[in-house]
Amino acid sequence: MTEKLTQPERDSDLPTLLDNGWTHDADRDAIAKTFEFGNFIDAFGFMTRAAIWAEKWNHHPEWSNVYKTVEVTLTTHDVGGLSTLDLKLARKMDQLIG
Amino acid sequence: MTEKLTQPERDSDLPTLLDNGWTHDADRDAIAKTFEFGNFIDAFGFMTRAAIWAEKWNHHPEWSNVYKTVEVTLTTHDVGGLSTLDLKLARKMDQLIG
Repeated sequence: MTEKLTQPERDSDLPTLLDNGWTHDADRDAIAKTFEFGNFIDAFGFMTRAAIWAEKWNHHPEWSNVYKTVEVTLTTHDVGGLSTLDLKLARKMDQLIG
Repeated sequence: MTEKLTQPERDSDLPTLLDNGWTHDADRDAIAKTFEFGNFIDAFGFMTRAAIWAEKWNHHPEWSNVYKTVEVTLTTHDVGGLSTLDLKLARKMDQLIG
C-alpha cells in the first residue's frame, strides 16, 4: 500500500527534485514543475510517454497543456500528500526529457 | 487567415455547441467543456486523438487532465476571441466521444 513520505525519505529524496526545477507546495504537500518544449508535438509527445508510465504504475498526474508548455502537479490523494510514487513519477518525467 | 467569428456565425453555430455542454466565457470570448471518461486510458486516449487533429489544423486547445476528467478551453489568441477554428475543434472533440 502507498504511504505518505516519511521525514527521512523527504530529507533524502526531495532536494534532488527541487534542484531539478520542481517546487513544493506545502499546503497541499504536492510537487509541481513547468516543462517547456520546442513545439506542441514535443510537448504532447512528452505527455504521452509520461501517461503510459503513469498508467503502468497506476499513479496519475494533475497536468495541463497550453501549446508547448506542460504544467504538472504530483501528489497522492489517498494519503493526503506526497508518497514515493510521486517522486518516482517526477524522476521519470525528468528522465523522459533528459 | 483566421478571423474572429462574426455575429451571424455566432448566431448560427454557437447554440448547437452550447446545447452539447460547452459554455461560453464572455470575458475571454472562449468556450469550455469538461469531458468525463470511464478511466485514465479513455481520457488520455481522447486527448491523443484530439491532439493530432489540433496539430493537423495548427490550432491547439488549453486543456487539463486529472485522472478521468479532461477540461478543455478553446479560443484564438491571434484574434482575441473565438474563430471558426475553435468551433471546428469543439465539434471534432464532440465527435470523438460520439
